[in-house]
Order: sequence, then C-alpha cells, then structure tokens
Amino acid sequence: MIIRLSHLFLRTLREDPSDAELPGHRLLVRAGYIRRVAPGVYSWLPLGLIVLRKVEAIVREEMNAIGAQELTLPALLPREPYEATHRWTEYGDNLFRLKDRKGADLLLGPTHEEIFCLTVKDMYNSYKDLPLSLYQIQTKYRDEARPRAGLLRGREFVMKDSYSFDIDDAGLQKSYDAHRQAYTKIFDRLGFQYVIVKADSGAMGGSASEEFLAVSPNGEDTFVRDDHGYAANIEAVKLPRAPDVDAAGTPAAQVHDTPDSPTIDTLVAALNAVHPRPDGRAWTGADTLKNVLVMLVHPDGSREPLAVGLPGDREVDPKRLAVQVAPAELEPFGDNQFAAHPELAKGYLGPGVLGESASSGIRYLLDPSVAIGSAWVTGADQPGRHVLNLVHGRDFTADGIIQAAEIRQGDPSPDGSGTLSLARGIEMGHIFQLGTKYAEVLGLKVLDSNGKLVTVTMGSYGVGVSRAVAAVAEVNHDDRGLIWPRELAPADVHVVAMGKHAVDEVFVKAAEIVDALVAQGLSVIYDDRPKVSPGVKFADAELIGVPTILVIGRSLADGQVEIRDRASGAAEVVPVGRTVDEVLAAVSR
Amino acid sequence: MIIRLSHLFLRTLREDPSDAELPGHRLLVRAGYIRRVAPGVYSWLPLGLIVLRKVEAIVREEMNAIGAQELTLPALLPREPYEATHRWTEYGDNLFRLKDRKGADLLLGPTHEEIFCLTVKDMYNSYKDLPLSLYQIQTKYRDEARPRAGLLRGREFVMKDSYSFDIDDAGLQKSYDAHRQAYTKIFDRLGFQYVIVKADSGAMGGSASEEFLAVSPNGEDTFVRDDHGYAANIEAVKLPRAPDVDAAGTPAAQVHDTPDSPTIDTLVAALNAVHPRPDGRAWTGADTLKNVLVMLVHPDGSREPLAVGLPGDREVDPKRLAVQVAPAELEPFGDNQFAAHPELAKGYLGPGVLGESASSGIRYLLDPSVAIGSAWVTGADQPGRHVLNLVHGRDFTADGIIQAAEIRQGDPSPDGSGTLSLARGIEMGHIFQLGTKYAEVLGLKVLDSNGKLVTVTMGSYGVGVSRAVAAVAEVNHDDRGLIWPRELAPADVHVVAMGKHAVDEVFVKAAEIVDALVAQGLSVIYDDRPKVSPGVKFADAELIGVPTILVIGRSLADGQVEIRDRASGAAEVVPVGRTVDEVLAAVSR
Repeated sequence: MIIRLSHLFLRTLREDPSDAELPGHRLLVRAGYIRRVAPGVYSWLPLGLIVLRKVEAIVREEMNAIGAQELTLPALLPREPYEATHRWTEYGDNLFRLKDRKGADLLLGPTHEEIFCLTVKDMYNSYKDLPLSLYQIQTKYRDEARPRAGLLRGREFVMKDSYSFDIDDAGLQKSYDAHRQAYTKIFDRLGFQYVIVKADSGAMGGSASEEFLAVSPNGEDTFVRDDHGYAANIEAVKLPRAPDVDAAGTPAAQVHDTPDSPTIDTLVAALNAVHPRPDGRAWTGADTLKNVLVMLVHPDGSREPLAVGLPGDREVDPKRLAVQVAPAELEPFGDNQFAAHPELAKGYLGPGVLGESASSGIRYLLDPSVAIGSAWVTGADQPGRHVLNLVHGRDFTADGIIQAAEIRQGDPSPDGSGTLSLARGIEMGHIFQLGTKYAEVLGLKVLDSNGKLVTVTMGSYGVGVSRAVAAVAEVNHDDRGLIWPRELAPADVHVVAMGKHAVDEVFVKAAEIVDALVAQGLSVIYDDRPKVSPGVKFADAELIGVPTILVIGRSLADGQVEIRDRASGAAEVVPVGRTVDEVLAAVSR
Repeated sequence: MIIRLSHLFLRTLREDPSDAELPGHRLLVRAGYIRRVAPGVYSWLPLGLIVLRKVEAIVREEMNAIGAQELTLPALLPREPYEATHRWTEYGDNLFRLKDRKGADLLLGPTHEEIFCLTVKDMYNSYKDLPLSLYQIQTKYRDEARPRAGLLRGREFVMKDSYSFDIDDAGLQKSYDAHRQAYTKIFDRLGFQYVIVKADSGAMGGSASEEFLAVSPNGEDTFVRDDHGYAANIEAVKLPRAPDVDAAGTPAAQVHDTPDSPTIDTLVAALNAVHPRPDGRAWTGADTLKNVLVMLVHPDGSREPLAVGLPGDREVDPKRLAVQVAPAELEPFGDNQFAAHPELAKGYLGPGVLGESASSGIRYLLDPSVAIGSAWVTGADQPGRHVLNLVHGRDFTADGIIQAAEIRQGDPSPDGSGTLSLARGIEMGHIFQLGTKYAEVLGLKVLDSNGKLVTVTMGSYGVGVSRAVAAVAEVNHDDRGLIWPRELAPADVHVVAMGKHAVDEVFVKAAEIVDALVAQGLSVIYDDRPKVSPGVKFADAELIGVPTILVIGRSLADGQVEIRDRASGAAEVVPVGRTVDEVLAAVSR
C-alpha cells in the first residue's frame, strides 16, 4: 500500500491544539490522526483509522485464538433489559438516554452484558452448548462527567467487549484465565509496559476482577504494588482490620477545652501546648480521629449523609470513597446540612453523635486502622472542645468499616508482605468474574447433565481499543512527534523525497524505490510533495512517527540514500542499489 | 478459515420468526445471520458479520480504486452544524435527538454532510487541495416511522457515505461520474440485477441525483422505465406541462344540479344520466377535475392546508406528493378542518374558492396535465352542484403546478419517447450533486488560482451496506434457504460429514479434507456435529446457503464423496481422491 502525501487528507499542525491536555493527544491531533468534533467525541482521520484498525486486528486475532466468536450487537438498545438489572438507573448520568418517535425509552450501550445474556438465552439451552465466549469490537457510549485527555476517556469510543458463559465456577475460572492470557498477549503486542492489578468491580457487580494498566505518569488510575507480587488499583486496595489492642491501661475519656482548633493542625498544636502527653511524646495527627461528613446521592435522587472516621493524618481519598458508595454519587456536606443537624458541631465532630443509633442517626463507618481498644483524641461535639482517650469499643462504636482513606507510598501491603509503592497507569483492559448476577435476573438457565435447570455463570472482559491508540501515543513519543511500535505504525516506512519539481530525478527514482518496497509487501508513506522544503518534510515525518524513515535527496547524485531510525535518531547512509534490502532489514529489526 | 458447526454460535430455526415480513429477512433470521433486538435494530451473529464484512470489503475496494480516502466520523454529533443547515428541524421525527448530562443537544448522525464539510474546512484552504473524495463505512441512525422488513429499513444501519469536494461544476461532474462508475462495479460484484434511475433529491437539496435500485418485487421503491433508456424513481418523475389548447369553441361554464354525487363515480353516473354530452360520448372520470385537500405539517409544527387539482380518473400518489412538500409532512384534511372553512363544500369542491387569492386562501396546485384552455366538470362549491365547461385560464387559475398524481403502467414517458412500465426495487445506492448548499452555509471556501475565495461544490454518495446484505438475501433464495453469490457467502464450501460419533472414520476423513481445502486457501464451514441426523444437516446447509456443499457420508466406504451446487441442486459424485480438485473447480465456476 502506498499513501502519497500529495494526495493524503492530512494537514499537520505546528502548534499544539488548545483543547488537548496530554502530550500524546496533542501529537495525535497535530499529526492528523484524529480530530475533535465535540467534547469526548473524535473523528478518525485516514492515518488514525489505519492505526485503530491495527489495534482491532491484534485484539481480534488473540480473541479468536482462545475460541471466542465475534458478532456485533447494536449500540441503540431498549430500556427494558437494563431496567431489569437496575443499570438503567444505577448508571446515573453516565448513560446516554433517549426516546424514539413513539416515546419508547432507548439508551446508547455502555457495555452489553444484558444483551449478550439475552442473545445466548434465545439460542442456547443445554450445558452441551457451553462453554461459550462471544465478543464484539464496537462503538460504545458513556456520558463522562469530565471527558478528558482526548481518546483516553471519550464519550464515544471503540471497545472490544467479550462475555463468557459457563455452567459452573470452575468453567468460569477457565474462561477467565483464557481471557487473562489473551490479554497479556494483546498488551505485549501493543508494546505496553503494563501491570495487572486487582480491581474494584464497581457497578458491574461480580467477584474476582483485574485490570491491565499501561504504566504512564499521565494515567488517570493510581495503583500500588510491592516487591512480592501484590498489585492493585488504589480503589481496590482492601486493608486488613487492625488487630485489637488492650485498652485496660487507658485512662477514662476526658473532655478538654481546645478553643480555636477546628482543624487537625490547630488541634495538634493546641494539644502539645496545653495538654502535653505524660510520657513527653508529641501529639501528631495520627493520634487524632477525624470525622468527615459527605452526602450520598442515590440513583433515585434521594440523599443520605455518611460519616467516615479515620486517623487525622490521613485524608479521605475521593476515588476510594466513590467506589465504596457506588452507585451513589458524592456531594459535599454543606453548611445548610449542618444547619439542619444542630447536634453536629462543625470542626469538633466526634463519634458521640454519629451512628445510626446515635442522636444524628447518621451512618458512621471507620477506617480499618482504627483498632478495637485504640484510644483517640477526637471532637467532643461542642464548639471548642475535644475528648482525649476515647477508646474504640469501650467509649464508642461505629456501624461498620470503610476502605476510603488515602494510601501512601511506603504503607504496608495489605497482606503484610512488604511496603507499597504508588504509580499511575491507564486502564487498558478489565476482566471480571460476573458470576450469575445478570443470568439470574434475565433468566439465562440451561439444562445440566442431569436435566436440571441451572443458572449460567458469566464473565465480562473489555479492552479499550480507541483508548489503546491514545495510550500507545502517550507512552511512545518525544518532543518532535509520535514513535509508533512497528505493529501499529500507519506504514512500515516513510519515504521522504527531497525535490522541487515533480519531474525531478529524485522523484523518479523515489517512485521506483517505493514501488520496489511495495512489491516486497511493505506499506509505504511516500512524501512526494513537490515544492515543500526538506525541513517541513522531516518535521512531518518525525511528527507522524513511522519507525523507519528513508530519505532520498541530494546525495542521490552520489548514489546514496539515508535510512533513519525514528526512535533513536540514528541515520545510516546506504548505496542506492541496496535500498530495498536495507529497508527490509531495518523494518524487521 | 474453518467454522465448525459443533462450535459456532448458531441455532437454526425451522419456523419463520413472527416479526419478519419478507422471505429474505425470514431466512436471515432462521439461518442465524441476524437477530432482532428492538424494532429496526439488529444484532449481527457470527455468520451475518462475515457477510456484512464482505460487502464492506467490496465497497472499500471500489471506493479506494477511485482515490476516495477512508476515515470515520462519530455517530454522536453536536446540534449546531445541523442547526445551521436547518436539518436539525427538517429531519423531523426521523432524527434521534438526545441531551447530554449538561443539557447540550446531540443527535445520532443520519448522514454526515455537515461534519465532512467542517472537517475539510478545518484542514484545507486552496484549490490545490481539490478534488477530494472522502468516505466512511459507519453505523448510522434514523428513527423510521415504520421500521420494516428487517435490515432493509432499519433504525440502526451500516452505510458507506462519501462526499466529494470540488472547485467548480466540471469538477463535481467528474467526481459524480467516478462515483457512478464505482457504484456500478460495486453492484455488479454484489450480484444484483439493478437499475439506475433519476431520483428526487428530497431533503438533501442539490440538483442531479440518481438511485441504484435492486430490482425486487418486495422493494419499497417503485420506479418507471421505457424502452428508450428513461428510468426514474416514481417520486422523481416530472411530467411535462400539457400544451395549451384552444378554448374558443368551449361554451360558457354552467352550474348544474348534481345531487348525491360527491365522488367521481357518482358524478360520472349523474352526468351521463342527466347531462349527456351533445356528441354522445360518455363522460368519464378523465373529464372531471378532482380537488384534493391535505394538511401540511411543517417542521416547526405549524399547519398549512393545500389543495391539489388533478383529473378525476387519477389518485394523488402519497409518496410523490410527500417529496413535493418535504420537509413538511402530510396529515389528512379532517372534518374539523372542513368545519373551520365553511366555504369548502365537501364533495363539491371546485377551483372557485381555492387559491391564495380566493375566498379560502388555500394554496391550489394543479397537475401538469390540466392544460391551459382545457374544460372540466368540477365542483361548484355548493352541496349537490357541479359546474361544466370550466376552462383553465379562462374561468379559473391556480397557484402553480405539482407532480403528485399517480403514474400508471402505459403512461407516456415524460420525454415523449415511449411508454412507461412500472416495477419495484430496493434502493441500494444514491448519488447526489449537492452543489454549494452545505459549503455555503458552513463557510467552506478555498482560494482559487487567482487567490479569490470561492465556495466549494460538493457531492454526496451513499451505499446501504447492511441493507445490501438484506437485499442480496431478498433476491437470492429459494424456499429451502439462502443462496449466496460466491463473493458474499460466509464460506467457500460447506462440508457436511454424516456420522454418529466424533471418532467415526467419516469425521476423521472429513477433517483431513477440510484441512486440505483450507490449505488451498478456501474458507470452510464444517458440519462436524456428531449425533445430528443427515436430514438436519442437509436442511441446515441449504438454509445457510453456501453455494457449494460437499457431502462426506456413507458412500465414503466406496471411495466417493458428493459435491452439490446449492443454486441448481445438481449433485456430482466424485472419487474421494479428487475431492480437493473438484471442490476448487466448483468454487471457481
């Protein structure tokens, strides 16, 4: 295939687009791969479409290799199945909903668990039909609150979603493992540095779940790992409950005046100034119990306050909290809410008034590090007063625990095997063991070998296909442009012919070489534009990012051409007669 | 490629689905190619997806061959560009509209003139960048009033749409001709019997326009043609205005009592009974002028009555009328509207009260056959009375003409060269010369060779890709199943192995043969299901419709296999040793 730049629908930009946040995204726009049409909605220009199709082809090959079968479900879907699984409501504002001319409710599919489930129910009815894995590579829709970073979190995007159907848990585990294996092959081929982390299964329901994250400082996801193989999305980190401690020696709780100390910092300062510890150790934020109020907004629109208690030296991590309360969304607990609850002393809030059976009636959940028997300095529920030596289990209780506190570099691993380091990544794939949740609700049952009806158990597996293009760009570029991995590049070689007029010898010879390369099965971008300066041509070649660049220019008169490696910048001068062999060698390196 | 029926996600149906109207559609459902998810919304099951992709590949090859470049625009689009071209409103209920979480108006793209236009405007600015042809193969959305016939008129469907951009009319004509040529190649390859007819350009605007119709008695479109090369969609037939006739000898108009004759039939009977013609010729409906009232509903919701006058022996053709009044839609003119217009004598309506300057103020348009100077019997605008010898141009006038009367088999061609015959077809492609309509509104201008800004002229060209699958099925089947043309069949050969147990010799041998066929580059559907009766296997093979069927069964013991031609039913017994050669010969026939 030859793509001639004199003909290609392309206009490279020297300036960064104003609406692009990340370097990879900026380069995809500047190099003419994509174009923004609306927030989170992009066009694929010719070069971008080639790369997108290459990602699709890799995904398709690896899915076919595990026996998954491709089909395509519609994007425009009826409400009823999503109503049955509650996702019509639980998806909240992320779901694009619309009505047809008859007033029927429709949605644009964000994922297709329901419809795949119903499709299989329609067609299969025996354990002999299972196991079954189906997939599609399809355009999906989510009305993201903050569509950002171009293709990384679009509102219209291409995804490979697959679904497995098994008769029992052992079968599901096998299907899950097969997908996990296929995904490692896919991401190896995409040229990512990636990690597989434990994931929160979020609104999808189900049990075991892992994410494939491309490691990138620009990633939206934070994950933790230790040196002993533990790795998890930060939203999925589940810290163990701290072991009970003996409170026998702890004095009784005493309320003290602590005026003007509504924050942890001011409280710690006041404690050290006015209530120094008998043993002389300074008070720190870690000795205090902070109680944070938030408002949950349930999918039906109802609001419910929630209190989270955690050591004062930690913040609540909004993302960790969000997954714990999903599908409810979070709102700040505002002054008008405080006004409605006079028992809540803002800045001096303590466990005394919190809890479903306490005076506020507000559900109160504790961080797992707050051990039974541990003593705390915390609010005394009166302005300007705190209580010391308030012991969990002796002086106060809560309604449960919640995994919502921030995780820090150096924290111990949940399994105690080491310490955690934090890094950022881009979610590229997600595999779930859904179990029977969807099949139960939608009635997907088959006869087992004893003729008994059993509910099918499902898995759900996604790869962000358009997102992969963006992620590859994010991790493969320099300040001059993109640097595609070979398997994804829009061409094998970018031939730059330096000439003024279309009839010049350099173009004649270049055309011959291009034909010879194509005859060898290579795909070629050929910069055959006359009257374009060498500087512009080089800049465009580096911006577009094909890994091998062949320069045919002035040195042709001396019987020489130049082969450049886009990534390293290394240039090699070769005799023109050996061009094809040398290019073939370069592209197979 | 091998598709094993023991593994394929497929369940063929013996019974017709209740929701399928047309035979091809019924067979696509029964053979497991597609599955209905909602009205006009279908899933592509594995076999269907293969066929769909083959159609896409043909379209892509022929578009690339004329130098058109592929890209992909989003389906989810912002309102503004469609507002600028008025299509946001003019598309009426056919447009799927929705709001995002911030309340912004979005639509699901029905066609993409606006966004292509803006994309080119973004990137190009010189006549040197033109001509340019761009295309996409993409999922599109239209909220059809009556989604019928499965994929033939779906609400979510796959379409190839392309757009040409030229500096002048001569360029547009060239781009149009190139597309016309590419379309003939596409439809030749799809194996259609098709006609190219003049088309109404409808809501798209623009001038020259032609449709490619697959000839099929189940088609939704009616077209006319004569023996001299004239062919047109019936909605696009433009009859010439009848030449003036001399009314000098026509007596003055006289009003007569014609009680109980509110219809053309009763009027003709009354005339012949009570007012016989002096020359003895019987009155017929053709001597009467019928005046039909309809109500137009404009896109902004406003209503406007319209009167159409035509010879009494013709009906108004609702489709022809619809394209004349688009984007307005039609409603009946009801009794309450008559009540609001006491000057309108129902059943005795005449030109006397019709017309923008007449007492009713209702716009009045005449069929072109109503010649200036011709005399008519028509309503006298009083119950029970008609007027005779009312002469057009002498006794009444109208506000214009309208091409809305039915066309009949045997009518003269508009160009007078012959007589028309009527047939039905399925619209498979449509090519338009849009001209500058969209570019003007959206500001797509480029500098010409004199440095002057000129508005780009556009063409728009569509192929119904998913519709093509349905249309091919509609014209290629018998009562036992589908009969795919070779280039579209889901496989080259369908191998039926007749055996009871998976270990049987017949399966062992069949597997060897299948491997040998695949090694020759053929794609194979292999019915390797054990314990399935020969009858079921034959029925499935015929239903699925691969053109060549290889049967490996009992006669294998005698060293023989059988090759069947799906279309003709012819069977040929060949020695097992020659199987591969004979199959290769069969599939290349």
